Amino acid sequence: MIDILVKKIKVTKNPTVVGLDPRLDYIPKHIKEEAFDKYGAGLEGAAKAFLAFNKEIIDATYDLIPAVKPQVAMYEQYGSAGMQAYIDTIAYAKSKDLVIIGDIKRSDIASTAEAYSDGHIGRVKVESNSFEVYKEDFITLNPYLGYDSIEPYVGNCKSYDKGMFVLVKTSNPNSGEIQDIKVNGTDEKLYEYMGKLVSKWGEELIGVEGYSKIGAVVGATHKEQGIRLRALMPNTYFLVPGYGAQGATASDLAGCFNKDGLGAIVNSSRGIIAAYKLNKYKDNYTEKEFAQASRQAVIDMREDLNSCL
Amino acid sequence: MIDILVKKIKVTKNPTVVGLDPRLDYIPKHIKEEAFDKYGAGLEGAAKAFLAFNKEIIDATYDLIPAVKPQVAMYEQYGSAGMQAYIDTIAYAKSKDLVIIGDIKRSDIASTAEAYSDGHIGRVKVESNSFEVYKEDFITLNPYLGYDSIEPYVGNCKSYDKGMFVLVKTSNPNSGEIQDIKVNGTDEKLYEYMGKLVSKWGEELIGVEGYSKIGAVVGATHKEQGIRLRALMPNTYFLVPGYGAQGATASDLAGCFNKDGLGAIVNSSRGIIAAYKLNKYKDNYTEKEFAQASRQAVIDMREDLNSCL
Repeated sequence: MIDILVKKIKVTKNPTVVGLDPRLDYIPKHIKEEAFDKYGAGLEGAAKAFLAFNKEIIDATYDLIPAVKPQVAMYEQYGSAGMQAYIDTIAYAKSKDLVIIGDIKRSDIASTAEAYSDGHIGRVKVESNSFEVYKEDFITLNPYLGYDSIEPYVGNCKSYDKGMFVLVKTSNPNSGEIQDIKVNGTDEKLYEYMGKLVSKWGEELIGVEGYSKIGAVVGATHKEQGIRLRALMPNTYFLVPGYGAQGATASDLAGCFNKDGLGAIVNSSRGIIAAYKLNKYKDNYTEKEFAQASRQAVIDMREDLNSCL
Repeated sequence: MIDILVKKIKVTKNPTVVGLDPRLDYIPKHIKEEAFDKYGAGLEGAAKAFLAFNKEIIDATYDLIPAVKPQVAMYEQYGSAGMQAYIDTIAYAKSKDLVIIGDIKRSDIASTAEAYSDGHIGRVKVESNSFEVYKEDFITLNPYLGYDSIEPYVGNCKSYDKGMFVLVKTSNPNSGEIQDIKVNGTDEKLYEYMGKLVSKWGEELIGVEGYSKIGAVVGATHKEQGIRLRALMPNTYFLVPGYGAQGATASDLAGCFNKDGLGAIVNSSRGIIAAYKLNKYKDNYTEKEFAQASRQAVIDMREDLNSCL
């Protein structure tokens, strides 16, 4: 799947992933009203509103982008109806041939990690029946527990051509609290140590495009750190959060890319899915034209990124 | 809720938490057949079999234990039907007055962490309606992203008297890969550094029993480390995995407790919920008597733990 992702980035000339992280206050009134009328102003109504909203965003952007990244927390909070909307969003995006990065950031071990792995990127067995449940192509994972929290995903990555992005350096203000500590009496920082581990874990999973099925999450808000990690992890694709709403610019994250313009895919959520609410777009698009504003935001982001690569 | 947990541990004289981590091969045939006949041998059938199984385990043990800890991965793998079984299991356990520790190990920041927080231990709003969705009393969290991945839960802990257990030192074989690195040129290890951070984060949330709403996960497989962390974190309750199936004995984990026998709650999953399959119990209990075997396993574990405290 990492090879397919790289090819799609080449074809679209766009290293943008659209973060499908809906919130009720992003959803236009007419979509909410329709969902609440039909399913009630409760958990199911919210979940169905998310799904309808996502479908329009996908319809308006799928030809321009390689991938979408739904953030499961936004759906999970609405209970089982929310999880169904997450699953249905993924199915719809796949029907448009998009690569799916499930932002789940799970962290567990042994049979627990196997359960996550089978559910999200593998197969779940019930008696003699086998089910693909969530159907992400990639998922994000947290490595604090060590390799035995990652290894249960490797088999499914191989069997079903899936992949993962492991947290190395995150984009949030407090990320340095743990990730920047110096390791074992050296000047090496934990995020560098993690980067080397993730790179090593991925060695046996490198595809024909030269990148491993095990990628890394590298926040765009730390310019020098992106450059450092790019050098340390030559075969690792980076998933880069933090562009736009979190304050990072295209030049901040240019160091996450290789000279050929590959090596990183950059997420934007709010800046695309709620573009119609931004000053930049709100005069040109009505609330009902929200998806067209998202399309324009994707085009603008693509140009912004490509101008720095 | 930490005060309620401590009081329940005192009343039951039992620091055992039953891990509700069902797997289909733990479920007796008659329960599976009934569920599959009614809901099909698929995701919903599996989810309903888990719920029926859990209810019998809860019925047979609730008077002996303070708390249960459902592991969400086991349910999540079965999609939205699985998540509903997780929610229904929690509701049933609460109806028996048990404290619920949701083992979710989430790790995210900002509005994403808020979504997890509101869904699991807070309230989710849809229009003017407010919903309690998962209804755990405590949840587990992964701290690799720093305090801004923990802080979004603090408000709900205060508003709704909830709590959390933050991963400090886990019980798995590779846990030392990251958690044992030495920090910033000192001999202090990362799990000690994390322990002190978690202790500090919890300072403003200490209840009348002397323990904070922010607890720590401390694996039982590392005897000396438990003793070290107990000394470093005097106001932090420990959730201790690793007893039984993972190889830790009561004497291994005794150091996680204070002299008064408080300070830690010990999880056992397989060893209790699948007791009827163990050599120790299988001659005395038929498959249909699985819940009675679980009850006996709880009694035996309570005695084993109390003999070392």
